[in-house]
Amino acid sequence: MRNLTLLTDFYELTMMYGYFCQGKTDEIATFDLFFRPFDESNFCIAAGLEQAIEYIENLHFSADDIKYLRSTKAFSKEFLQWLKDFKFTGSVRAVPEGTVVFPYEPLLIVTAPICQAQLVEAALLNIVNHQTLIATKARRVCHAAAPSSVLEFGLRRAQGPDAAIYGARAAVIGGCSSTSNVLCAQMFDLPPKGTHAHSWVMSFPTELDAFIAYADTYPDNCLLLVDTYDTLNSGVPNAIKTFDYLKSKGYKPLGIRLDSGDLAYLSKQARKMLDDAGHDDCKIFASSDIDEYVLESLKQQGARIDIYGVGTRLITSNNTPSLGGVYKLANVNENGCDYPKMKISDNPIKMTNPGVKTVYRLFGKDTDKAIADLICLAGETIDETSPLTITHPLERWKTKEVYDFYVKELYVDAIRDGKRVLPKKTAYELQQDCQASLDGFWDEYKRLTNPHEYKVDLSDKLYALKEQLILKDRKTVK
Amino acid sequence: MRNLTLLTDFYELTMMYGYFCQGKTDEIATFDLFFRPFDESNFCIAAGLEQAIEYIENLHFSADDIKYLRSTKAFSKEFLQWLKDFKFTGSVRAVPEGTVVFPYEPLLIVTAPICQAQLVEAALLNIVNHQTLIATKARRVCHAAAPSSVLEFGLRRAQGPDAAIYGARAAVIGGCSSTSNVLCAQMFDLPPKGTHAHSWVMSFPTELDAFIAYADTYPDNCLLLVDTYDTLNSGVPNAIKTFDYLKSKGYKPLGIRLDSGDLAYLSKQARKMLDDAGHDDCKIFASSDIDEYVLESLKQQGARIDIYGVGTRLITSNNTPSLGGVYKLANVNENGCDYPKMKISDNPIKMTNPGVKTVYRLFGKDTDKAIADLICLAGETIDETSPLTITHPLERWKTKEVYDFYVKELYVDAIRDGKRVLPKKTAYELQQDCQASLDGFWDEYKRLTNPHEYKVDLSDKLYALKEQLILKDRKTVK
Repeated sequence: MRNLTLLTDFYELTMMYGYFCQGKTDEIATFDLFFRPFDESNFCIAAGLEQAIEYIENLHFSADDIKYLRSTKAFSKEFLQWLKDFKFTGSVRAVPEGTVVFPYEPLLIVTAPICQAQLVEAALLNIVNHQTLIATKARRVCHAAAPSSVLEFGLRRAQGPDAAIYGARAAVIGGCSSTSNVLCAQMFDLPPKGTHAHSWVMSFPTELDAFIAYADTYPDNCLLLVDTYDTLNSGVPNAIKTFDYLKSKGYKPLGIRLDSGDLAYLSKQARKMLDDAGHDDCKIFASSDIDEYVLESLKQQGARIDIYGVGTRLITSNNTPSLGGVYKLANVNENGCDYPKMKISDNPIKMTNPGVKTVYRLFGKDTDKAIADLICLAGETIDETSPLTITHPLERWKTKEVYDFYVKELYVDAIRDGKRVLPKKTAYELQQDCQASLDGFWDEYKRLTNPHEYKVDLSDKLYALKEQLILKDRKTVK
Repeated sequence: MRNLTLLTDFYELTMMYGYFCQGKTDEIATFDLFFRPFDESNFCIAAGLEQAIEYIENLHFSADDIKYLRSTKAFSKEFLQWLKDFKFTGSVRAVPEGTVVFPYEPLLIVTAPICQAQLVEAALLNIVNHQTLIATKARRVCHAAAPSSVLEFGLRRAQGPDAAIYGARAAVIGGCSSTSNVLCAQMFDLPPKGTHAHSWVMSFPTELDAFIAYADTYPDNCLLLVDTYDTLNSGVPNAIKTFDYLKSKGYKPLGIRLDSGDLAYLSKQARKMLDDAGHDDCKIFASSDIDEYVLESLKQQGARIDIYGVGTRLITSNNTPSLGGVYKLANVNENGCDYPKMKISDNPIKMTNPGVKTVYRLFGKDTDKAIADLICLAGETIDETSPLTITHPLERWKTKEVYDFYVKELYVDAIRDGKRVLPKKTAYELQQDCQASLDGFWDEYKRLTNPHEYKVDLSDKLYALKEQLILKDRKTVK
């Protein structure tokens, strides 16, 4: 496993050193990792927890790391000595991967001695921001493609090897049926997908030679790329000849792939040509700068595409290539006393929620559909037998009475006393969890354009604490 | 070193197997890796070659890899056996990192037995697309910031660990003065940069307590983040008190960092407050959703910022998060005979340039500034003593007579007979190479908005070959 301990911003280390010098190493800090509202999506699909756990479990400063830090001349001998035995001894509570999660709901809640909790900020944000971003984008793309399925094809345009590998993993959690990326497939037990490129066709004297050669190599699994020269006048007719040849030998051809041009028009024409030639069981695959908006348009035009390969715009989350997740101090525990912390700002959307928290999701007993989420202080319980008033977190005059509901807490223990306690799941298991979480929401929340606003409230206790801290702040001289 | 041999699309392996079955393993293929015109920038800064070389040198199928490929049931025993001794034995010619490069000019030219040249497609595209994208974005950001300098701050928003590490490397090649990413700094011998976060301030009873504690920890290098509570009413006054304290102890404070709000207004006010308090040697750092457009606006408004920290929008290349680089077959050599190849398309910008090629850059003898680039067939030489007519590659009626020029070939040998031949350079050396390459161009080509179109021509021989292949294609039955 790669040692990513130095995958951190330098200021995490200078702050650690500062806490060390100030004798604050025994203070226990709680940080929340959450995202704020953003344009692309009203909710996210949580992802990246598995790699976050692996990163934390593997945290240690190697002899080389300490030698390197010494060379920066920013740290004392005592501090570097102290780093030799450094490991993570705290806890992480987390929203499980594949769960629908809303702005301000912590994806991770890290509680640990302040130096440990501070060090992990940048890497946890890097890992969770990235995978949550891509799982969220994949959910949108798969939603628009349904009932057609989506393959992840983005390796060549991803932002480096990890973006390709972990991006494809996140894409599968969000709903993609598999990936073309062999290393990702190997690491996460997925069937790798793919056929041949234009270069295969170009390396033979004619397109038909190339198709027949491919059919001879993969008679059971023959999918032909038909747009190297001219899709309808050369590619599809040559594919049909090849499929006739395969059928005459007793094989069942798989289909064709379109990779350029007007996919709606070409797919309809190709479907007719294949059907007329008796190959109505052959599938049509399509790729070429596809995203959820292109998919909605193709559906409206009646495109006849069975399986989509989606690359660039999914693997980079083209329209919104970063999730602005942040990691904010929520509580400090000193000598057994809690001091809830919050960031005060003139801009209400930049204020944070203080204290150690949890989130409950309320479901209707009759429908099993989510009604609202309630961000609470840890330890608060919800009485499922009485009606509950849900209030808009910023616009407090908006309220809603809820009854006949049951609650589920969003968090699981991922790490306790520095040790992993969350069992591993496969990418396909997490995909199922994602589908189950999505099934808990009405379609109105899941549509891509102008979705209905889902209610995420603060409990009365949390709201009161927040008000109290804001009032105290106004009276304090800093 | 990580084994990235399976970082490939599955179709590269199915094609390799196809070539193997067809007895084509001795054919020598040449592929060009290049990008087509795109909106964000008229040219790119080449980057990623170092990691591309490392990837190629390290190519090998481990026992686990072969076991995994066997499990896919897509390959014969003979092929899997053959993979055991697989290594890259070909050559790579490349545009050196830090060089200004234009659409259609191959960044890499890979010549190798076809299975080898095919396998590396996806990983080379991944590595070179990513780093070239970020170096190009960094060039734009640094251009807009000049004479202020730019630090790379994007770790937490990068698309995974590699995107952060290699993205920061590419950002330095493109002009950033350093990075906050400690692992990148360690790997590429850069000074890591950073101070403290809001959480440092929030973990103390008051902002002033936090500032004094930080000053005591780093008296020589004290940079204070002033926007945790209220920049002008609390942060800057407390920073001034802290700087007074440091000066009284004989230290020279470094400055303040603004991380939110109206950076133009706040920087001007903060500058005045610092100057009035006698701290006119203190620098003002700023970060907060900055890109080249924000920088141009800040400059117009007379912002007083000395150093910028640029994160999200640089490390993800926010407006254009992927470079659409492609890898296209240009030539097949079979039994010593060359067969130039090209992709024919109805869309002229999608046609490729056939044959094994090189590129010359023409410079004016009097100015040392670039006049035009000429894409040629390999082996062509340019007579520097005679005038040369440059023709637009698509619009052939546009010509320009060039005289009093000298030429430089853009390529170096990176790998020959499977062995690295290009010496390693540090990130700062590559940054200097980049600056030298940029210095070879007039400002009109380098401005961010509506730059002047730079001429990239095809030699007469290459143009004739292209025409000949298109005519032949029209007459061929496929």
